[in-house]
Amino acid sequence: MKIAVLGTGMVGRTIAGRLAGLGHEVIVGTRDPQATLARTEPDGMGTPAFGTWAGANPGVGLATMADAAAGAELVVNATGGAGAVPALAEADADNLAGKVILDISNPLDFSAGFPPTLFVKDTDSLGEQIQRAFPAARVVKSLNTLTAGLMVDPASLGAESTVFVSGDDADAKATVSQLLRSFGHTDVIDLGDISTARGTEMWLPLWLRLMGALGTANFNLKVVR
Amino acid sequence: MKIAVLGTGMVGRTIAGRLAGLGHEVIVGTRDPQATLARTEPDGMGTPAFGTWAGANPGVGLATMADAAAGAELVVNATGGAGAVPALAEADADNLAGKVILDISNPLDFSAGFPPTLFVKDTDSLGEQIQRAFPAARVVKSLNTLTAGLMVDPASLGAESTVFVSGDDADAKATVSQLLRSFGHTDVIDLGDISTARGTEMWLPLWLRLMGALGTANFNLKVVR
Repeated sequence: MKIAVLGTGMVGRTIAGRLAGLGHEVIVGTRDPQATLARTEPDGMGTPAFGTWAGANPGVGLATMADAAAGAELVVNATGGAGAVPALAEADADNLAGKVILDISNPLDFSAGFPPTLFVKDTDSLGEQIQRAFPAARVVKSLNTLTAGLMVDPASLGAESTVFVSGDDADAKATVSQLLRSFGHTDVIDLGDISTARGTEMWLPLWLRLMGALGTANFNLKVVR
Repeated sequence: MKIAVLGTGMVGRTIAGRLAGLGHEVIVGTRDPQATLARTEPDGMGTPAFGTWAGANPGVGLATMADAAAGAELVVNATGGAGAVPALAEADADNLAGKVILDISNPLDFSAGFPPTLFVKDTDSLGEQIQRAFPAARVVKSLNTLTAGLMVDPASLGAESTVFVSGDDADAKATVSQLLRSFGHTDVIDLGDISTARGTEMWLPLWLRLMGALGTANFNLKVVR
């Protein structure tokens, strides 16, 4: 499949690398490809420059948001929460029409420090905001409930855990569920329409406190039933 | 241990019955014991009248909130979310001073229908509101993440699952954790101070949507790590 991954951070890189490894044709979308490649220093969190990663992943392309989305059959939103709608707007609604958007973002607000709060919640969600902003796209919220490494390799935990899909379009959820299974996910729960993204986005406050208590992000929830 | 269970609903009854079965001296607290026992009809959700349950559980006492709390070493708040602070106020701050309050309540707001939203969240929690309202009590938030039957018999799921404790007082959390283990909980995660109750209370929106998707409340999360 031709897949655009919007976002050059850890989540975008991890998803892009894994998809390319599975044989998909992957292009990462960024605001300004030249500027992205010109940076050579690690960012404030110690993440290496994108160019360093790109050098080790020659099979993954880099393009503007719009060029990446235009040629893609499926678009992954791997931007930070507040940047999601602007990034997708830059990708252009026409380039998203009819396509599946796999939305991994979380509405995290770090303005008051750590742990972050959510800038939308409970009566609305970021998944719904994206679906409303791009009504011709088919948004599926998924993978926003676990750390990037486990998104693409859940088997590394050594025991089965659970991921979720939320979306209004059954075919789009089936497409995403198939991708999830190709990553190794064996327990995918369909929560229902896109409004159920409120549930998975509101899991983040517990996830963040678990990360604090356990001292690692390398965990996931399993729905035991 | 002498334990007061505030609340005559399904959660209160389930906890009270289990504690009595474990040999504790249990008194259920209610606003007006005579009125509670006078009701004979099931409520709007089909829950049998309290008197019916009490008849089958002769070892459990019934008293006013204040009388139940006055004689107790540990107080369980099993009231509905909006009723929690009023019920504890009726129990009287003096009767709660120094005591462990095991707070099981969730801040569910059903005013706009189902699924409910949360009337406090993200920057505050019901657990914190209770701790602030009764500063001399030692509040431990726990068991608010799963259905009543599994709170007291997690082994019935057939696989290990996880519960949490949040609270400012380490001894109080140890007391509650010991109770949890006596119910059969083998994976108890200490999330930290009472502000971490924001995390477990915000799990409810996902819990509610899982109940919808799975068609049962008989599930729990396991933190796989």
